[in-house]
Amino acid sequence: METTLIYSVPFGCSFAAIAALEWSGLPYRLARVEARDPASKQHPAFLAINPLSQTPALLTHTGAPLLESMAILLHLAARAPGSGLGFAQGTPDYDRLNSVLSFLHTTFHAAFMPAFQAARAAPDDARAAVWREMAVEKVNKSLAHLERLLEGRTWLASDTAPTIADAYLAATARWAEPLQLASLADYPNTARVLAALEQDPGIRFAHAIEDGLPAASRGGFLGHVALDQLAAKAG
Amino acid sequence: METTLIYSVPFGCSFAAIAALEWSGLPYRLARVEARDPASKQHPAFLAINPLSQTPALLTHTGAPLLESMAILLHLAARAPGSGLGFAQGTPDYDRLNSVLSFLHTTFHAAFMPAFQAARAAPDDARAAVWREMAVEKVNKSLAHLERLLEGRTWLASDTAPTIADAYLAATARWAEPLQLASLADYPNTARVLAALEQDPGIRFAHAIEDGLPAASRGGFLGHVALDQLAAKAG
Repeated sequence: METTLIYSVPFGCSFAAIAALEWSGLPYRLARVEARDPASKQHPAFLAINPLSQTPALLTHTGAPLLESMAILLHLAARAPGSGLGFAQGTPDYDRLNSVLSFLHTTFHAAFMPAFQAARAAPDDARAAVWREMAVEKVNKSLAHLERLLEGRTWLASDTAPTIADAYLAATARWAEPLQLASLADYPNTARVLAALEQDPGIRFAHAIEDGLPAASRGGFLGHVALDQLAAKAG
Repeated sequence: METTLIYSVPFGCSFAAIAALEWSGLPYRLARVEARDPASKQHPAFLAINPLSQTPALLTHTGAPLLESMAILLHLAARAPGSGLGFAQGTPDYDRLNSVLSFLHTTFHAAFMPAFQAARAAPDDARAAVWREMAVEKVNKSLAHLERLLEGRTWLASDTAPTIADAYLAATARWAEPLQLASLADYPNTARVLAALEQDPGIRFAHAIEDGLPAASRGGFLGHVALDQLAAKAG
């Protein structure tokens, strides 16, 4: 059976898994969650797969649910060993990839969360300013670390092609400017890699999917599946 | 060359890597950082390995620095394939392990961070109450999810022996009660697994190391190395 990825809009970090699926060449379907629509975000078929109502969530080729972005990306890399998405266990490349992937999923992703919380706060909630200030500090500190990681490098974990770590960077770094937390002009290495990623066909495909525009797959995209139909895909 | 792990006290999440090294059977040394002592926490030899001054940090058997807890734990599991610490790439067990490991490193670990920030705040800093409230909500939500993950299971990702995920659970869940964020009595599955872990020789060894007590290794512990000596271990 083909893999099914549940992604969310707008601005989901599930964006990374869409690009990774394109790069992988594996056959797959997508299921769309509208994060601002309770009927979609709390859809019973989605909650049956992930009670936390978070994306990405995956139904693997065996129909097994797989949660957590980093686990999903490592799964896709392992299923497409010739794709350059990831590396073999026990190699220095595997270590480097896991290290940057882990930094992005823990420190960098977490840095944005207080800003999202502030954005959801009631207009008279005085705590929102404290949350935003926390996000500004943490996001800039993380971007400074990314600058060091990307010094003299083409991609985060490979010199030849983007990996799942770059896909996740594209999915998360795009939050900084719309949320007014940092200016990427202050982080030239990160800005350079992000600009290169925006030219990549898999990343462009993921944007088109999120934006609801015609999306030409160079990979194994088989179309969308409605949330109502997810139960039939689960093993 | 043997592996060297830089861990910190008190209450470092590097605790998990100490236990994992014990379980792995690999030869290793430990280097200790006193997190509340600036001369230790900002030691130049430590900062040369990790400019973020975070633990765990590893010097692998080749002398290469490896940062980020999840990457270090996956590295140790890959280097000791017969130990039961982890699983082979491409298997359902690898997926399950990465999923719980990722949940613990992202959502669960991040849930505690505002409480640590509050604990470091000046006594008259009104923001501390906002930070603590955030931590209470997030830690309890994460513990409720762990209850679901552990329902009917002996360990987080294996039925036969603890894995690196259980080691990380032991390292982080212990923060909840001292910080007065949650009561483990409300989370019986988690409390049961934590109690079982406290009987494990590798976990007991890690406690003894942290507490500066005589620690009997059943693994490949070769002793401590001073921070001053780290440069000689780096490749």
